[in-house]
Amino acid sequence: MSVADLPPAEDLPVAALAPAPVAGVVPVEEPAAVPEVRTDLSTADLHPSLEDPALNSMNFLNEVANHYPDAVSLAAGRPFEEFWEIDALPRYLETFSRHLRDDLGHTAEQVRRTLFQYGRTKGIVHRLVATNLELDEGIAVDPESIVVTVGCQEAMVLVLRALRSGPKDILLAVSPTYVGLTGAARLVDLPVLPVSGGPAGIDLDDLLAKVQGARAAGLRPRACYVMPDFANPSGVSMNTATRRALLSLAREEDFLLLEDNPYGLFHGDGERVPTLKAMDEQRRVVYLGSFAKTVLPGARVGYVVADQTVTGADGSVGLFADELSKIKSMLTVNTPALAQAIVGGKLLEHGCSLAKANVREREVYARNRARVVEGLAARFGPESPVRWNVPAGGFFVVVTVPFVVDDALLERSARDYGVLWTPMHHFYDTGIDGREGVRALRLACSVVTPAQLEVGLDRLTRLITDELAAAR
Amino acid sequence: MSVADLPPAEDLPVAALAPAPVAGVVPVEEPAAVPEVRTDLSTADLHPSLEDPALNSMNFLNEVANHYPDAVSLAAGRPFEEFWEIDALPRYLETFSRHLRDDLGHTAEQVRRTLFQYGRTKGIVHRLVATNLELDEGIAVDPESIVVTVGCQEAMVLVLRALRSGPKDILLAVSPTYVGLTGAARLVDLPVLPVSGGPAGIDLDDLLAKVQGARAAGLRPRACYVMPDFANPSGVSMNTATRRALLSLAREEDFLLLEDNPYGLFHGDGERVPTLKAMDEQRRVVYLGSFAKTVLPGARVGYVVADQTVTGADGSVGLFADELSKIKSMLTVNTPALAQAIVGGKLLEHGCSLAKANVREREVYARNRARVVEGLAARFGPESPVRWNVPAGGFFVVVTVPFVVDDALLERSARDYGVLWTPMHHFYDTGIDGREGVRALRLACSVVTPAQLEVGLDRLTRLITDELAAAR
Repeated sequence: MSVADLPPAEDLPVAALAPAPVAGVVPVEEPAAVPEVRTDLSTADLHPSLEDPALNSMNFLNEVANHYPDAVSLAAGRPFEEFWEIDALPRYLETFSRHLRDDLGHTAEQVRRTLFQYGRTKGIVHRLVATNLELDEGIAVDPESIVVTVGCQEAMVLVLRALRSGPKDILLAVSPTYVGLTGAARLVDLPVLPVSGGPAGIDLDDLLAKVQGARAAGLRPRACYVMPDFANPSGVSMNTATRRALLSLAREEDFLLLEDNPYGLFHGDGERVPTLKAMDEQRRVVYLGSFAKTVLPGARVGYVVADQTVTGADGSVGLFADELSKIKSMLTVNTPALAQAIVGGKLLEHGCSLAKANVREREVYARNRARVVEGLAARFGPESPVRWNVPAGGFFVVVTVPFVVDDALLERSARDYGVLWTPMHHFYDTGIDGREGVRALRLACSVVTPAQLEVGLDRLTRLITDELAAAR
Repeated sequence: MSVADLPPAEDLPVAALAPAPVAGVVPVEEPAAVPEVRTDLSTADLHPSLEDPALNSMNFLNEVANHYPDAVSLAAGRPFEEFWEIDALPRYLETFSRHLRDDLGHTAEQVRRTLFQYGRTKGIVHRLVATNLELDEGIAVDPESIVVTVGCQEAMVLVLRALRSGPKDILLAVSPTYVGLTGAARLVDLPVLPVSGGPAGIDLDDLLAKVQGARAAGLRPRACYVMPDFANPSGVSMNTATRRALLSLAREEDFLLLEDNPYGLFHGDGERVPTLKAMDEQRRVVYLGSFAKTVLPGARVGYVVADQTVTGADGSVGLFADELSKIKSMLTVNTPALAQAIVGGKLLEHGCSLAKANVREREVYARNRARVVEGLAARFGPESPVRWNVPAGGFFVVVTVPFVVDDALLERSARDYGVLWTPMHHFYDTGIDGREGVRALRLACSVVTPAQLEVGLDRLTRLITDELAAAR
């Protein structure tokens, strides 16, 4: 869609092709020849990921949203906006600066240097993150095993880049999978083998079969990616017994677990189940964290806990976090100190507990999830073939319908019905799972008001009713 | 050094291995078995880049600096710190917010969303960057061809990731090369073929020979990386004739030029030579920009201008910037909006001209370069075998000596003489250039006071004098 909508090369503004005069710069003679007009590159000559559905999903979904700005969006998994205050930003900077001064003994010059200058590759809020993990998740880690990253996305890229040592390495991932994980794997040429999720959040028999099958084929499964709490996109969570069995299997079969936990704090009324990392006795779990939903996305601050030990060629032993840090030094150098300072300020203002800081947000998400589930029940009776799940937390509900949900249907929904949602096929990897035939859609209820939610559900109901009638 | 200094696995604090209790989380039964102690991973099982000198150079140099904090540093290529003001940060945020409101017509809600929420992958300061390029560099580009990145480092990774379509693709780079370029190439498995720099900044005969030799060997040179203005580490610049000839060669031999320009504004008394991009008639140049030296490093904001057209498999035509944006969406998702807002605020406060905003900094760097060159001349007479170049701008001066400058010498210099600098061998790629035998060191004069500079030069002189005496 993006490429088709762009003007052809001939129509590009001439100003973009010719140099303009500038004061203080020696002028260049005009060339005699007319500039050759041609296309410069071809996608066939670029990295194969650029033609991969994983890298085009996000683009496509954003473009549909941009093209129909008046549609009600039940598509975007964005955090609730109403409680954010612009005035808080300078205050967070000041709070973090005071922390550097009063708690860490920085001079004024050192504070300024920490905020403005190049800094520590693994980050400057690592101690605050460690305290946060201990308070909110019961995870006790050495701050040195934390790498603060440009959002959780960079953390995934660091880990996958490190683990891909050669063409035999593969990654396992619970399917359906967050598309950002698949995209990160594409960037480092790491194949992703899907593992059935099912009602337990992971099908351990299928996981074992996939691991053994991959080994029999000469491949090496390095890790399995899971989102045990209120997964994106499925909304499904794993219970404690499943988590314990998963940890055992990872140990027995010798692979790592990549635990991604962006939604854990947004549980419903039930008690929280401990994270895999909190249950991890043997450093099997690499833990991926995000402040996008608990602080704000515009800071782009996430992190990875990588407390695994790594033996070097010379027999020396270090931390996996330090290997990831080397990669980060060549990817983004540092996570912006100013963005870390804002997240650090928010952490400090809430005694490093984001569970406490997000009480209102948790209530909003619980209210909205309840409204989606109740709203669907009110619109589709027990006789209807339409089904949905009832997640215990998070941002998402999955609706299953008796017809194929493809991108054309989404476009029709946006254009003719004024409602956006996400076709579930985007979360299944190409080919393997038969994404062509996926009959489900994801509803996000995190960023809408109750009124928008009702309008969105009404419109979705009209679309589904029309589709059911047409299929009859 | 980092790995050797870490405690062995047995000594890791037990707290880091065992879960701690947490309120509101269901407790897990204690396991009967004692946790197994072993190392979890081995560098042999990780991506080969992690054992590569390019990824270990930065670490080694940082560790020497951290280990000798009292040494005078002529090593760090960091911008001058004295003019930075913490109070400017909230003001930049306010200035950028006002711009969104008054110039772009955002409502208060939209301003908040732009700063706090997920945003446009290609960035939110692209129009300001385009204006800046027109004012300061005479480069006229469509803002849509700009991707705002997490520092210039991410821009390099995006471009190299895109251009590496398969194992036959290679990159050319003027040698000695900025180590961040080599590191980025390692992360995407793209081999780098060195091209002689020499006094002209690039040896065009060698470039042609390397391109043709690579093709004869079945390889495909995709691009040549250059830093035409006051290069890091050499300090050398290309004149207009060399730039024009380089553009012609790139067109005739059909490869791209990656122009990196972090120091262009810090020229001396001479007039500036136009950038390659300003002379680029046929979209041969991908331009890499950085605000680390002209605004502040702690924002980590850079950008790439990629106005090349790209033909898709379906015949549609798009911009190279949009392909890079797809990769960015899976690498960092967005450049932090808050960091962009601070850079945007500074740009707005100076009418988008950073040349004007950096008048004082330019004077500091010119003064320091003059002091280094004059200080070396005062200490090493015409009879001395010690030589140095006289760069017309930038942060660096290269000193040539008649003995090998290795890492052991740097450590001795830090420990026994109290002065840090950078062995030039770190900027030569492994093996190919015989980095073992490099007899030169780089002095950075960007972040020191005149007094520190004099002390540093005195100490360096003692080191060199002792080495010369020992060699006799």
